[in-house]
Amino acid sequence: MPESTLYPHVSVDCVIFGFTGEKLNILLISRSGINEEECYNDMKLPGSVIYENEDLDDAAYRVLHELTGIKNIYLQQFHSFGSPERTKNPQDIVWLENAIHMKIGRIVTIGYVALIKIGQKLQNFSDKYEAHWCDINNIGQLAFDHNIIVEKALDYVRLKLEDDPIGLYELLPKRFTEAELRNLHEIIFGTKVDIRNFHKKFLSLHYVVPLDEKQENVAHRAARYYRFDKIIYNQIHR
Amino acid sequence: MPESTLYPHVSVDCVIFGFTGEKLNILLISRSGINEEECYNDMKLPGSVIYENEDLDDAAYRVLHELTGIKNIYLQQFHSFGSPERTKNPQDIVWLENAIHMKIGRIVTIGYVALIKIGQKLQNFSDKYEAHWCDINNIGQLAFDHNIIVEKALDYVRLKLEDDPIGLYELLPKRFTEAELRNLHEIIFGTKVDIRNFHKKFLSLHYVVPLDEKQENVAHRAARYYRFDKIIYNQIHR
Repeated sequence: MPESTLYPHVSVDCVIFGFTGEKLNILLISRSGINEEECYNDMKLPGSVIYENEDLDDAAYRVLHELTGIKNIYLQQFHSFGSPERTKNPQDIVWLENAIHMKIGRIVTIGYVALIKIGQKLQNFSDKYEAHWCDINNIGQLAFDHNIIVEKALDYVRLKLEDDPIGLYELLPKRFTEAELRNLHEIIFGTKVDIRNFHKKFLSLHYVVPLDEKQENVAHRAARYYRFDKIIYNQIHR
Repeated sequence: MPESTLYPHVSVDCVIFGFTGEKLNILLISRSGINEEECYNDMKLPGSVIYENEDLDDAAYRVLHELTGIKNIYLQQFHSFGSPERTKNPQDIVWLENAIHMKIGRIVTIGYVALIKIGQKLQNFSDKYEAHWCDINNIGQLAFDHNIIVEKALDYVRLKLEDDPIGLYELLPKRFTEAELRNLHEIIFGTKVDIRNFHKKFLSLHYVVPLDEKQENVAHRAARYYRFDKIIYNQIHR
């Protein structure tokens, strides 16, 4: 291993949100190792130390692409995290030094948010990672300060989508029902929505276009599918 | 000098906005040196490499405090900049290596925005720095990628103040006139404001409280002073 230095390393970490139709998930990576002769197995955000001559956005896109195979993803830098306390758990340091084959003093990480459609072939991840979609309400204790990063990412997404709801349609499948959009609203903004008021608002969204297709093989009454029209949306919002 | 490494260094840079009543200024530091036997003199943002065991926010507060002597300042992290191109100018590398007595490969910087009242004893800066208030429209070519950082900071402030105008009152003096608030609006949002419409809106701002004081020694009709009431503001906005 190269000699230890006091200089901080720099990484990117990606909080990748996906929506199942019922729950908001994030994509996490299984991590296992041995610390003080005890085996452990926990989860972390997908991330990487930045490469020499690599810009921050490029590093985040690289992580996403390596993991998902997808290139065209909604991705935003949202906050950087640099507390020396980030690496206070010796288990994290040991894991990191094994992963990047370098001695690490501390590591500053640049946080990115991605919004993607879970459906889109996104159940087959690169063999390089053991990746899982996890319900945002049930992620347990993550490595490093990744719980703090997820909290802050969620705050960012809420503010961002209040201002410009286009991100909601990055999360929804290409064709979606009114109930799915309503669920997503309730989860993102953390408030119960009145069904009738929501329906009125839904009908007034000119960029949500009804399709000539309905749900199939459902126990309840089959709901109509809609699609998001980006051109109409941009005419209204830009 | 310690040996060169390929690991990036991490710094903070502060875009400190102040308002003269007529113009939006930022606080810049004079930098001079010799590059290829030519003397140069230019300007940069106040900033610093982060210290060992120092969190990012702490580093930004330290820079502000060292420079201005003020501790209680509106300060927000807004974006990080890590392009390898940031340090493509050899003059910047030479200056930086002299300043921090280390060999530098590249440097990732975390950008902060501060909003302060210029009046507030803020003409006497620490002797350690040669600091100047400069009109945002006339800053010329700054060191490193600092012009890009300033642009991005201004975009951030615009969006932030559209959402929550409290920052406008961080920039205004403790007592201010309607014309000063209107000027600031025009500069921040980059649009000409209709005086009569603005006046109506101004009168409806319950948190802008008239004082029993008027301008003195002015050529035109003396305007009334107002103050910002944070308690009323918080009742409305939180």
